[in-house]
Amino acid sequence: MTDVWYQNSIECLALKEGSEHMQMVDISTKEVTEREAVAQGRVFLKATVIKLIKDKKTPKGDVLEAAKIAGIFAAKKTPEIIPLCHPIPITSMGIAFTLKKDQVHIITTVKGQAKTGFEMEALTAASVAALTIYDMCKPLDKDIVISEIKLLKKTGGKSGTYVRK
Amino acid sequence: MTDVWYQNSIECLALKEGSEHMQMVDISTKEVTEREAVAQGRVFLKATVIKLIKDKKTPKGDVLEAAKIAGIFAAKKTPEIIPLCHPIPITSMGIAFTLKKDQVHIITTVKGQAKTGFEMEALTAASVAALTIYDMCKPLDKDIVISEIKLLKKTGGKSGTYVRK
Amino acid sequence: MTDVWYQNSIECLALKEGSEHMQMVDISTKEVTEREAVAQGRVFLKATVIKLIKDKKTPKGDVLEAAKIAGIFAAKKTPEIIPLCHPIPITSMGIAFTLKKDQVHIITTVKGQAKTGFEMEALTAASVAALTIYDMCKPLDKDIVISEIKLLKKTGGKSGTYVRK
Amino acid sequence: MTDVWYQNSIECLALKEGSEHMQMVDISTKEVTEREAVAQGRVFLKATVIKLIKDKKTPKGDVLEAAKIAGIFAAKKTPEIIPLCHPIPITSMGIAFTLKKDQVHIITTVKGQAKTGFEMEALTAASVAALTIYDMCKPLDKDIVISEIKLLKKTGGKSGTYVRK
Amino acid sequence: MTDVWYQNSIECLALKEGSEHMQMVDISTKEVTEREAVAQGRVFLKATVIKLIKDKKTPKGDVLEAAKIAGIFAAKKTPEIIPLCHPIPITSMGIAFTLKKDQVHIITTVKGQAKTGFEMEALTAASVAALTIYDMCKPLDKDIVISEIKLLKKTGGKSGTYVRK
Amino acid sequence: MTDVWYQNSIECLALKEGSEHMQMVDISTKEVTEREAVAQGRVFLKATVIKLIKDKKTPKGDVLEAAKIAGIFAAKKTPEIIPLCHPIPITSMGIAFTLKKDQVHIITTVKGQAKTGFEMEALTAASVAALTIYDMCKPLDKDIVISEIKLLKKTGGKSGTYVRK
Repeated sequence: MTDVWYQNSIECLALKEGSEHMQMVDISTKEVTEREAVAQGRVFLKATVIKLIKDKKTPKGDVLEAAKIAGIFAAKKTPEIIPLCHPIPITSMGIAFTLKKDQVHIITTVKGQAKTGFEMEALTAASVAALTIYDMCKPLDKDIVISEIKLLKKTGGKSGTYVRK
Repeated sequence: MTDVWYQNSIECLALKEGSEHMQMVDISTKEVTEREAVAQGRVFLKATVIKLIKDKKTPKGDVLEAAKIAGIFAAKKTPEIIPLCHPIPITSMGIAFTLKKDQVHIITTVKGQAKTGFEMEALTAASVAALTIYDMCKPLDKDIVISEIKLLKKTGGKSGTYVRK
Repeated sequence: MTDVWYQNSIECLALKEGSEHMQMVDISTKEVTEREAVAQGRVFLKATVIKLIKDKKTPKGDVLEAAKIAGIFAAKKTPEIIPLCHPIPITSMGIAFTLKKDQVHIITTVKGQAKTGFEMEALTAASVAALTIYDMCKPLDKDIVISEIKLLKKTGGKSGTYVRK
Repeated sequence: MTDVWYQNSIECLALKEGSEHMQMVDISTKEVTEREAVAQGRVFLKATVIKLIKDKKTPKGDVLEAAKIAGIFAAKKTPEIIPLCHPIPITSMGIAFTLKKDQVHIITTVKGQAKTGFEMEALTAASVAALTIYDMCKPLDKDIVISEIKLLKKTGGKSGTYVRK
Repeated sequence: MTDVWYQNSIECLALKEGSEHMQMVDISTKEVTEREAVAQGRVFLKATVIKLIKDKKTPKGDVLEAAKIAGIFAAKKTPEIIPLCHPIPITSMGIAFTLKKDQVHIITTVKGQAKTGFEMEALTAASVAALTIYDMCKPLDKDIVISEIKLLKKTGGKSGTYVRK
Repeated sequence: MTDVWYQNSIECLALKEGSEHMQMVDISTKEVTEREAVAQGRVFLKATVIKLIKDKKTPKGDVLEAAKIAGIFAAKKTPEIIPLCHPIPITSMGIAFTLKKDQVHIITTVKGQAKTGFEMEALTAASVAALTIYDMCKPLDKDIVISEIKLLKKTGGKSGTYVRK
């Protein structure tokens, strides 16, 4: 009886694979290539808070150091956070911040050799760095907004280079 | 000799507690109150992709179901992701989506009884739901943007109710 | 414009809360009571392998010690593994094994003071203990089966005591 | 003195490696091959609950969508849950459900290129999908049973193809 | 038959609870009190490396900021890392460093209201802060040693205050 | 305008890459080689407690079994715990203990094929095994000290073999 069940189920599975059910896309036959993704995010804050960040005077500690490390951990955690992301090995990860009058601009880069790209790792790192800035500054500014989280550039893989216009 | 060391270190720590070093803020003496936070996020997508999401025709599976569950898990994971967040017990968590012409609008609500608020839980859930939508739609639209992640409302605690204007 | 959006979204969320969308059930108004859950699982193995487990002669190490610790960790991880489980504080956790001719019988108990029960913690611990036994014995028996994972008993909370018949 | 200690300890370790102490088996010299594992699980539920699942009318949300995502996350988390599992890269993962009169039949498939197989990943995904169904249906049926979690098929590696009879 | 099984197993479990099997100690009946733990660790490094740390000139980034955040995350992760630790809510956490000629001296303090103490949280934070310093300095010094990880002080709970002599 | 921003930011990132900001070191161009790391740790305990460990008579369960499994899990968790560690695949992991009159001596070995070494994995495993021994013995000895966590040996990679003198 188990055999019949098994037969049916395998058929059913095969059937479903042709349709739109939830699954981690099969990347088995894709080529391992050198890949890189660059993403960004912006955190809009009061000018007075930007100044405190710059001067390392915020009450909870050095905002940008905390945001960098939270972002680096987040890049590594991406497949635990985003359901259909494949676990792929990061070989390099950097985060840089530019302080503007009314915002912190975050840029993240993630590199590795894999069968699929590092877009979600770079985007997740940018989002978590932004959330960390939010958390550390919220006693000072109740109206913070995180915006424009997006991919800037992607290289490697069959689809080639993408640069956001 | 250890005693001397210890003495000095405790002094040093006490000293530092008066200044701006990194730390999880002490909430020991804050009152446990019923608290709620409502946050939002927006994911800007092509109109054709919005239609596919609505019709559950995207290739990787049902986008909004995946985004809901990823967001719920993320709310629970917040203190693992954001360095200075206190672990506080969530008693309720909901995520709702509104499909507009060019965007998915995400609203998250988190509730609990705690000594500090659930803002970061609601914001992290909104961010991760947005990233999940990004991940599941990126084969269909290379120019997705996540924006306007922000707190909409907060109740409970000494500082009282906040509603974003 | 944000205000209008916000208004609409809150309405939309309120609307949805009356219907069947995904959410962590609101336990805010439930009472904190002493609660306990007892669950079980069975792992069916060849008699020769049962003997090796008893004699601590399996090639990868002491199977039951590994299964106990994996089960204890799993009880604590439950809200990270099961989407809609609330994080609730475990105050005690035990795992016991009975070696029978053709099976390992696992019993788990989890206790705590909370607004909701520890059924999923006890069941998750039993499942992970069973999977660990499977993993450590699979070089010795290719036909292992895990069965009868179920709740045996539950006490505390408004619904009172449940004992499986 | 450290040298003597070190000498002795290395000897002691070497000694132990010849006996049955706990360890992650050394797979360094095994070949990387394309591997696949198919596993199953069954969740026995009242016929009335099966109907509610089918009609997406269960109170906590869409049961099968939640179970799929929980199962996919669990496959990726396997080495964090099962003590002696090696971390190996999944390239594809699918979950399918068949609703029968008195049960949900779960089938999971996991693929990748690795030095060891994906059996535990497929079994863990099936177990966690089953536990998620249990969690979402327990307000409707107190007597749920999870059974017959087992490997159905395994391909790749030196030991070749296994199909459960 | 299940009943008989169940009966026996419960007996067996009861029996085992009187003996020395593995378990998370039952803290249900212990009182919730304000508790604090202070721990320390030392990382021995070359004087030249201590100077680079002080001047924030190490190649991988600001060592002490990274160590603080890693330590704070580790305190929160303690029950996931140490098998029999109960999950208890931290309300405050601080890390301070003293740079000496040949070492970094780490002091950690953890506070909360709970039924058991925060010793392991403070010790785990000190260990992970030390390991992070090791990781960030190992390209500069191959002979780093981490030593004297120990509890300095503990207050709260039935056993009262402990101060290491 | 986005273009200008983007331009500037990329420049800014490039600029920073030449200086000492926080980052996961780029290992893309390093060669994958067979690598092994051996580390140690010592836990100093009263002689009476050492005897209880040996006789498996400690109240919380078998100390060394728990420490082994906690150490194995910790080796796998290393990149989640230490900020700048790359995720690299472990192919083998062993832990051995030597009971001396006043201490438990822990030796860990980790092996794999990777672009960077397994030092931090071996050191993290030794630290967590030591912390687990601490946790399980602290009701019996309040003055436990963990010491001499250090690398003993490292092979593989461009820098060649290292043996601590």
